[in-house]
Amino acid sequence: MSTIPYEQSHLYRLRHSAAHLMAQALTELYPGVKLAIGPPIENGFYYDVDLDEPIREDDLPKIEERMRELARLDQPIVKRVARDRDEAQRIILEECTLGQGEETALYKLQLLEAVPDGEEVSFFEQQSSANGKLHRFIDLCRGPHIERTGEIEHFKLMSLAGAYWRGDVKNKQLQRIYGTAFETAEELEQYLNFLEEAKRRDHRVLGRELGLFMSSPKVGIGLPLWLPKGAILRETMIDFLRSEQVKRGYQPVVTPHIASIRLFEKSGHIITFKEKLFPFMEEGEHDTYILKPMNCPFHIEIYSSQLRSYRDLPIRLAEFGNVHRLEQTGEVHGIMRDRGFTQDDAHLFVRPDQLLAEFIGVVELMQVVLNKLGLTDFRARLGTKDPSSDKYVGDDENWALATAAIEQACKQMGLDYEVSPGDAAFYGPKLDLMIRDAIGRDWQMGTVQVDYNLPERFDLEYIGEDGKPHRPIMIHRAPFGSLDRMIGLLTEQYAGAFPYWLAPVQVAILPISDRHVGYAEAIARRLQGFSTPDLQLAQFEGAGDPDVYGLGLLPPGEDRRRIEIDHRRETLGKKIRENQRMKVPFMLIVGDRDMEAGTVGVRSREDGDLGPMSLAGFLDRVEQAG
Amino acid sequence: MSTIPYEQSHLYRLRHSAAHLMAQALTELYPGVKLAIGPPIENGFYYDVDLDEPIREDDLPKIEERMRELARLDQPIVKRVARDRDEAQRIILEECTLGQGEETALYKLQLLEAVPDGEEVSFFEQQSSANGKLHRFIDLCRGPHIERTGEIEHFKLMSLAGAYWRGDVKNKQLQRIYGTAFETAEELEQYLNFLEEAKRRDHRVLGRELGLFMSSPKVGIGLPLWLPKGAILRETMIDFLRSEQVKRGYQPVVTPHIASIRLFEKSGHIITFKEKLFPFMEEGEHDTYILKPMNCPFHIEIYSSQLRSYRDLPIRLAEFGNVHRLEQTGEVHGIMRDRGFTQDDAHLFVRPDQLLAEFIGVVELMQVVLNKLGLTDFRARLGTKDPSSDKYVGDDENWALATAAIEQACKQMGLDYEVSPGDAAFYGPKLDLMIRDAIGRDWQMGTVQVDYNLPERFDLEYIGEDGKPHRPIMIHRAPFGSLDRMIGLLTEQYAGAFPYWLAPVQVAILPISDRHVGYAEAIARRLQGFSTPDLQLAQFEGAGDPDVYGLGLLPPGEDRRRIEIDHRRETLGKKIRENQRMKVPFMLIVGDRDMEAGTVGVRSREDGDLGPMSLAGFLDRVEQAG
Repeated sequence: MSTIPYEQSHLYRLRHSAAHLMAQALTELYPGVKLAIGPPIENGFYYDVDLDEPIREDDLPKIEERMRELARLDQPIVKRVARDRDEAQRIILEECTLGQGEETALYKLQLLEAVPDGEEVSFFEQQSSANGKLHRFIDLCRGPHIERTGEIEHFKLMSLAGAYWRGDVKNKQLQRIYGTAFETAEELEQYLNFLEEAKRRDHRVLGRELGLFMSSPKVGIGLPLWLPKGAILRETMIDFLRSEQVKRGYQPVVTPHIASIRLFEKSGHIITFKEKLFPFMEEGEHDTYILKPMNCPFHIEIYSSQLRSYRDLPIRLAEFGNVHRLEQTGEVHGIMRDRGFTQDDAHLFVRPDQLLAEFIGVVELMQVVLNKLGLTDFRARLGTKDPSSDKYVGDDENWALATAAIEQACKQMGLDYEVSPGDAAFYGPKLDLMIRDAIGRDWQMGTVQVDYNLPERFDLEYIGEDGKPHRPIMIHRAPFGSLDRMIGLLTEQYAGAFPYWLAPVQVAILPISDRHVGYAEAIARRLQGFSTPDLQLAQFEGAGDPDVYGLGLLPPGEDRRRIEIDHRRETLGKKIRENQRMKVPFMLIVGDRDMEAGTVGVRSREDGDLGPMSLAGFLDRVEQAG
Repeated sequence: MSTIPYEQSHLYRLRHSAAHLMAQALTELYPGVKLAIGPPIENGFYYDVDLDEPIREDDLPKIEERMRELARLDQPIVKRVARDRDEAQRIILEECTLGQGEETALYKLQLLEAVPDGEEVSFFEQQSSANGKLHRFIDLCRGPHIERTGEIEHFKLMSLAGAYWRGDVKNKQLQRIYGTAFETAEELEQYLNFLEEAKRRDHRVLGRELGLFMSSPKVGIGLPLWLPKGAILRETMIDFLRSEQVKRGYQPVVTPHIASIRLFEKSGHIITFKEKLFPFMEEGEHDTYILKPMNCPFHIEIYSSQLRSYRDLPIRLAEFGNVHRLEQTGEVHGIMRDRGFTQDDAHLFVRPDQLLAEFIGVVELMQVVLNKLGLTDFRARLGTKDPSSDKYVGDDENWALATAAIEQACKQMGLDYEVSPGDAAFYGPKLDLMIRDAIGRDWQMGTVQVDYNLPERFDLEYIGEDGKPHRPIMIHRAPFGSLDRMIGLLTEQYAGAFPYWLAPVQVAILPISDRHVGYAEAIARRLQGFSTPDLQLAQFEGAGDPDVYGLGLLPPGEDRRRIEIDHRRETLGKKIRENQRMKVPFMLIVGDRDMEAGTVGVRSREDGDLGPMSLAGFLDRVEQAG
């Protein structure tokens, strides 16, 4: 399949012409409107206009309707080249304005001025008469366009925004109208469905609705506050990865959030990572501190704090480390891109003869993690050095060695990968796992990097079997990439309906009336597996004793199931709707008949009402849900 | 028992005279020595001297010996008052120098200048002749002193330090000699034993030896890096408290490490906590950030992010929050006082009718925590407002309410407390638990505070049963106080020999030779309870399968015992000594006979060799150890 660049495609021209069509509709609907610019963009097109009257969402159908009428006239779109500047100016002042006054040509005249001398100045014109009325539109434009407006069939106006003329905040703010257009009705529909689906899954909206996290203007941009349910998600994911890491011989460490500028001068971050560093903290003459953007130099300090022997390696230091990066405010996006986040970081210090096996071990761990998270559609991307850039440290030989090691490991694992020049870390090449989510978007998440350079920069050593000092190699890795970003992705992936093991509340118990609360508590206590009285429940009157209700012993399972009792005095219907909205995997509804029979009425998030079950029967069902 | 203030005690005078005695010995041993000042201090005395020749630790016995000779002469110590300044100057220049040259009077002349006009100028003189030799010493001194040097029997010179004249770094650095003195031989011995014991338990030394934490000049002062064993201690303590908190209805939250200055302006920290704030981070015109010194304002933001009903309260938000406080470099002391540390923080938002029960609940949790940690000798201290200070926020009525609530709760619990004016937090009174450690030192650790003021400052509300807004009360609490500080205290309390549940390595398995390694691994796997193959052990050849060795199933216990296999090729004796030095609670020594019999040779840290046992038998023993 040969792919034409988007900019040279028919779709690109179609969208460009759709922008002109919209401008034509606007000049008819809003006489005197001043047109600025209207290009095609990634998923559609826009036009910026200057109009005293504000355009509202409500107005878009009307504009769209006029566009359809004009499209149906099937106007030919014709290019005209001005003989010289004078003629170009005349066309703008006389023809483009269509008698709406010279003032409307304001922006076009400025655009003309910006055309370099000697360059062709062209216009695109479309016109037709219908029922004796002339419809005409001519615009200063480089093109290219499609041939007739009749081709513009499958389009939609999307949204409104403000935009400064020429992108400069010192200029006037214009009104921008976004639209999209496709070649077929199916493609348009597919795109609109995708957008709706993405909107339904937006982690910022779900994060608020499900009580995962919040932001606060008093705290600052890109600094999320994790609410109880989000904090439990974090704990669950951290506990899971921690346990997988213990199995694989990782050792935990905890390092400071700040360090003296000396550390980052030594590591090179102060230059290579400069743009993302928070402002420095200067403690008079004593010292200057930086919020850490990465954990590597701290783990290196730990490695080099004692003499290491070849028998001590590999040393695998893991930390759920909090890092800060000064992302542009416009780039901050919920928890998918924030300014203070938690990396599931680790650094492996290995001998050359261990590199291959350790690299493979890391990639295997990443696969285990992604499978557990249900993100099974992923591919590998090898980020290499951009030879033309100077943002890297280390010599070419080390870069070649590191790149070859990754390639060899992939080959041995039978792992396909694409190469992406310029996507390396500043100290070495990396293998990223790119995840395709439930609605087809690709995300760069987990990463593993081979690094010969920082060990050299920090003069790291181990004593080899030969009694002489040798240089270890570092592997940097983060299976989640960022805990924050991964939770954002999972929220969108599952549209908030997290799998049972990950759900902040796994089971909601709904007593039908107040007299069933004691029984609900008894069930909660048994499911939570507390051997001591559950003090959390003591706030309810008549805290339930499982044995009094004859609920029986349960097989040992997860030791702390996450249970909530919905003790609100609402109707059962309302409670069920509310817990469904909160996407709780299981509801246990308990009333008189359950108290008599020692059962619970099970309701599954996916499958609805499952009828009465014993607690043991319910747990069997839970195990199926995983 | 009526207690005389130390400054008015005989002991204080004794130590003052001991300082003079030392100075007398120095003038004899180091002719030309320039004496500066020599006061009694908390646990002894010192004298600062200016001497070209450096005094070394080795020299202290010689000085001490001369002091003993002079003490035995039982010189009378006599006060002389100078008639006027001129006479005082003459005494200094002629008598104090004892013919050693006027230059030696340098500092005393400066001290004389500093005596306010009209104030009495006194000297203390001691002299005697022995074997025809005159021993004499006279010093400018306000006194008082004891009557004869013969009383100075039980003393010891302790250490050397540098000290700037008048404590000003711009002045010359003098040599300071520290000593101590007591009234009885028993008291001196007890004190020296105490010091030795404290030194043996010093968490900074043990922290290094046991691999708990380290510091690095490249990172900065008071910013510890937690090594694997220290990180595991942290995880274990956090997991324990987290589980106790879940039982009690606490909800976890996670909040940023930094926030805009706006948040701390609102909370009042910017003024009341100013001295301890790290330097600000100024992001151009955008915003200014502060490293958080406390978590309270973040939890308040979470509380106020949604409408709360009286039915939602109490809300208990808990966070292991990382805070930064700019302690003076001289006050930084290992992890007992560092600049970046983790608070086991929580804030309870309660209704007035819930305050008493919730306060009691917190104190009970703190008692559970201290008992679990083995810190059973503690007492309560009520820190109240210092009426003369202006460092507090809030009105008197709220302070009175909060103080009364604490007093009432203590009364109801039958908890005795002492009152300590001036020890309140800036927003409210607090109850601290003061722990007496294994060698009799008192430490302020856990704290619980009642706060009517921040809720008012942040205008917090809940909707009451009456449908109207009401003001909640906040309880601030931290059972550990600081995780860092508590680990420091526990390290000293147990001299590094942590109880089994807390020990970073709980069991070390020592294969006698290489052929026992597979068996050692099989035991490790069974004890760790991994259901999947233990990848950590795969690095050893012939990773052991428990079933092959017929080790049997174990009763379900803690799910992840912390096991290490000591696979070093050292003698068994050396391995045992090394693991004993690392204070591992249990060693399992395995050789041929164990492999045949399916046993392990158990060695307990406290009780030594316990002989061969089955794994189940060993775990019974472990349970006894708690």
